[in-house]
Amino acid sequence: MDFSSKLLENAVNEMSQLPGIGRRTALRLVLHLLKQPQSQTNDLAGALEKMRSEINFCSSCHNISDLALCEICSNPNRNERLICVVEDIRDVMAIENTSQYRGHYHVLGGKISPMDGVGPGDLNIPTLVEKVRSGKVDELIFALSSTMEGDTTNFYIYRQIEPFEVLSTTIARGIAVGDELEYADEVTLGRSILNRIPFETSLKS
Amino acid sequence: MDFSSKLLENAVNEMSQLPGIGRRTALRLVLHLLKQPQSQTNDLAGALEKMRSEINFCSSCHNISDLALCEICSNPNRNERLICVVEDIRDVMAIENTSQYRGHYHVLGGKISPMDGVGPGDLNIPTLVEKVRSGKVDELIFALSSTMEGDTTNFYIYRQIEPFEVLSTTIARGIAVGDELEYADEVTLGRSILNRIPFETSLKS
Repeated sequence: MDFSSKLLENAVNEMSQLPGIGRRTALRLVLHLLKQPQSQTNDLAGALEKMRSEINFCSSCHNISDLALCEICSNPNRNERLICVVEDIRDVMAIENTSQYRGHYHVLGGKISPMDGVGPGDLNIPTLVEKVRSGKVDELIFALSSTMEGDTTNFYIYRQIEPFEVLSTTIARGIAVGDELEYADEVTLGRSILNRIPFETSLKS
Repeated sequence: MDFSSKLLENAVNEMSQLPGIGRRTALRLVLHLLKQPQSQTNDLAGALEKMRSEINFCSSCHNISDLALCEICSNPNRNERLICVVEDIRDVMAIENTSQYRGHYHVLGGKISPMDGVGPGDLNIPTLVEKVRSGKVDELIFALSSTMEGDTTNFYIYRQIEPFEVLSTTIARGIAVGDELEYADEVTLGRSILNRIPFETSLKS
């Protein structure tokens, strides 16, 4: 693309660095900003810069938080001996939205993925192992996505906590509520049969 | 969505003001920035602010330009008596990419669209009419998109320049080069038959 303005070209170049935003979309977004009041662009730029420079992470669960200890970790009504291991803040938000979980979280900050250059050293694994080692945890719920990277990460952590006395569980995989059986994939349907639960249990949830 | 951080929430709110960016996508983009070096966020924010505050428009054709007179308008090899009327800079870039046009442009900055609150007064129409009135133009090529808004805008301008001596043309509509006839819509196919051209002409292009 040939731009008639260096300023416009720079803005489009920076915008198209974002994932899923190509140069055409970036141009559309930048032209939109040009048609809006200047304050909107300043607000956007200011919010991004402020967020990037001042963001904090909870010292206990590593979730994004404005406080040194996040609201979940500092809530006395939540069970700190039950920890759900997740990939990032989006998973925390998704589980919180269900209102079904009253334990703590541990945010790894990613999954082990050699293809993307992410090794165990890049994740918040040592603090989790330390929590388990010092006997502060009764149960660890693995809630990573069931991809190869997720399974690798689960297994890596599992091997490290194996020597200690802690119950390890993983979230149930199966047919989604409301889905039709005939359209489910074989792996999911197979697992949902193998891991069937007592009918009485299903009535309670 | 419940955010654990006000900074994150602000950034997501501002990002999701952009067209086609919902709150989930905004969160994904913002979390991506958090994983990148801080300089990337600063570069993006800086480029947007600088672009928005310092951008200039060509005094003749109203295209975005860093100079008072854009490169196209100041190019002595281009025919200033031939003017192509377009909606915005993206159309200029698309036509320039064809390398088939050696005239000038006139960027309206939008289309007449009462639904979006855009009236003739919001567009760069008076300067175009003035150019025609003062006898500086031989031919005006209408190249707006063939939607109701585009047709309305074409007709509005046409009525204003009608009293003056100028040739008005519109870009050809028809089956795209390489497209199969059977999949073309009826309106386009019908127009391409009505506006057929001598076979010899098609050999030259």
